[in-house]
Amino acid sequence: MLSREIKDKLMERETPFYLYDMGLLRRTLETIRTESSRYGFKVHYAVKANFDEELLKVIREYGLGIDCVSGNELRLVRSLGFPASSVVYAGVGKSDKEIRYAIEEGICAFNCESRQELQVINEIAGRLGLRARVALRVNPDVDPHTHRHISTGHADSKFGIAYTEIEEVAREFASLEHVELVGLHFHIGSQILDMRIFEYFCKRVNTLLGWFREHGFPIHYLNMGGGLGIDYERPDQFPVTDFADYFATFDRFLDREGMEVHFELGRAVVAQCGELITRVLFEKVNALGHHVVIVDASMSQLIRPALYEAYHAIENLSARSAETGTYTIAGTVCESADVFAKERTLPRLQRGDLLSIKSAGAYGASMASRYNLHDFPESVYSDRL
Amino acid sequence: MLSREIKDKLMERETPFYLYDMGLLRRTLETIRTESSRYGFKVHYAVKANFDEELLKVIREYGLGIDCVSGNELRLVRSLGFPASSVVYAGVGKSDKEIRYAIEEGICAFNCESRQELQVINEIAGRLGLRARVALRVNPDVDPHTHRHISTGHADSKFGIAYTEIEEVAREFASLEHVELVGLHFHIGSQILDMRIFEYFCKRVNTLLGWFREHGFPIHYLNMGGGLGIDYERPDQFPVTDFADYFATFDRFLDREGMEVHFELGRAVVAQCGELITRVLFEKVNALGHHVVIVDASMSQLIRPALYEAYHAIENLSARSAETGTYTIAGTVCESADVFAKERTLPRLQRGDLLSIKSAGAYGASMASRYNLHDFPESVYSDRL
Repeated sequence: MLSREIKDKLMERETPFYLYDMGLLRRTLETIRTESSRYGFKVHYAVKANFDEELLKVIREYGLGIDCVSGNELRLVRSLGFPASSVVYAGVGKSDKEIRYAIEEGICAFNCESRQELQVINEIAGRLGLRARVALRVNPDVDPHTHRHISTGHADSKFGIAYTEIEEVAREFASLEHVELVGLHFHIGSQILDMRIFEYFCKRVNTLLGWFREHGFPIHYLNMGGGLGIDYERPDQFPVTDFADYFATFDRFLDREGMEVHFELGRAVVAQCGELITRVLFEKVNALGHHVVIVDASMSQLIRPALYEAYHAIENLSARSAETGTYTIAGTVCESADVFAKERTLPRLQRGDLLSIKSAGAYGASMASRYNLHDFPESVYSDRL
Repeated sequence: MLSREIKDKLMERETPFYLYDMGLLRRTLETIRTESSRYGFKVHYAVKANFDEELLKVIREYGLGIDCVSGNELRLVRSLGFPASSVVYAGVGKSDKEIRYAIEEGICAFNCESRQELQVINEIAGRLGLRARVALRVNPDVDPHTHRHISTGHADSKFGIAYTEIEEVAREFASLEHVELVGLHFHIGSQILDMRIFEYFCKRVNTLLGWFREHGFPIHYLNMGGGLGIDYERPDQFPVTDFADYFATFDRFLDREGMEVHFELGRAVVAQCGELITRVLFEKVNALGHHVVIVDASMSQLIRPALYEAYHAIENLSARSAETGTYTIAGTVCESADVFAKERTLPRLQRGDLLSIKSAGAYGASMASRYNLHDFPESVYSDRL
């Protein structure tokens, strides 16, 4: 909740822009450090959630590692001082150039998504006279019951090595001289809030671990991916998600004795500290009698509602009375999908009002486009207001 | 269809990139000029489809006007020499700054989307001591039966002035000194290929025109928007869409005597001349036995499949045999939605193959993001290879 003084300062700025609550980011990181260190878990920040450099600098202060998915992401975090040894490199489509660069940098591990990728990494490492550290991304066939776009661990997805093929791939390691099998990687999807899904996931992993042990591949490194969700409905009540419960679930259900356990968290780290600040341009009533307000932000700056039908809480920062109305809150772009909220009840809106679209710190700015030739949104940091 | 020689040249380039067939763009523009000039129709190119400057320069050569939706788009086309008098300015969310700039430039007309916008334009023009030319965007409540994201003319949308409110708004003009009612604007949606929809739309507009005439607002300017679709299934057979049928439909069904008739075409102008060239990185078989190939492009460069479940024809430019396979063609981004095609039968694919994702000239590059910190895709022009 912003103070009246800060709201007044924001009123004068040109909209739209992303506002980052740096205090909340620090509290979140503090919680992650406390809760993960109870069990010696290592946490990597998934840069794809938000590659804002100011956020990354604070994340580095708290000792998190990095989960990157492109050569550009790796280059960025290296330039910001993250040690290569703290970086895992994920993604189904690594180019030869990116693989070469990551091997040269000496990253912690590749999350390897296919048998062919393994062969390519081996070949490139061989040419460099180096040995690449590889964790096999196994697709455990766990359905996280979230939106189909962000569910990644079911059997028919493009991700990971099929559990049906894993034996063959594991055996292949013996013949590959330039890769070292450091362990296993998983990622079942994102925005998961039901701990029973992680419990089931741990049990699936335990079974797989048993198989690896029996077949002479003792595993000492597990990267459990990310997936922990946040409360999009009640961001002010639950600004920091339940990391305690999350890590405790893995501690309880994962056979982790003698195991180095890694996590990749993106949304849970940065979603709640970011909000998209926008202004009401026009109000109108359509032929069905629905009140529509047009704001000056759009899917160019925040595509989640259009792409995933994602819910974001919205606050009228200019509200001065208790009177409410029910509104469709639409963006400027000439597409019907460019709507931030439908039938949302809010303190009465009028032209000039400043709105906050909450929980927009993850997959907001990092997915921004220049559609309609909009400028990229500016970032404003609470500690520099 | 590209020659073997050009394909060989493309093989050496770093992928992904957009390739534009400038000859096809010229043939398309030639057709538009011929078919629209039969009836004296004026065509505005909708910049939002693709703001590539090289395409815009060619479009300018053929005398098209511009349909812009932001101050930045207006600035760009003015810098490329499009006369302000050929520009219409559309969009539900024009900021005060953008309105001021467009009035100062002396554009052909605003497509005004609400009563409040009309008042704001009047007020800003008044402050500038100028008079703004305004066409009222009327929402005619026509359902184009296309994807819900790109259908804009139904009663519950955010677009235009409700037909129920139009009388009130038209009367208001009398009291507004700094706006001139030049006519009416409509846009019912896009990717429409069934001419009966345009026929029905013309008849709706005729009814509205009758009403305006009877109430003492004789209309002499009609902007019928865009909406003409292209053949995404058979781009090589139908590289230029049926402009003859399109314009003839309006000529036949619209009461256009004494009327200046404008159109706003984007997709129909540039979609077929652009393709996204990408390379196969990896092949794999998932647990359900489906063949998945990972290419080095993604939803960062072309979001239409993820956002609209859009179909794009795909060609294997490296195919050397008649043998085929059935593939899921997936992008690099860590999202399940980042898939360009499912169960697509193509000449056998293997690592290193070059693919063309067709019909990507519209809403391809212009919607690109830097998600996963990917670089913006390069543009390659066929006349400079």
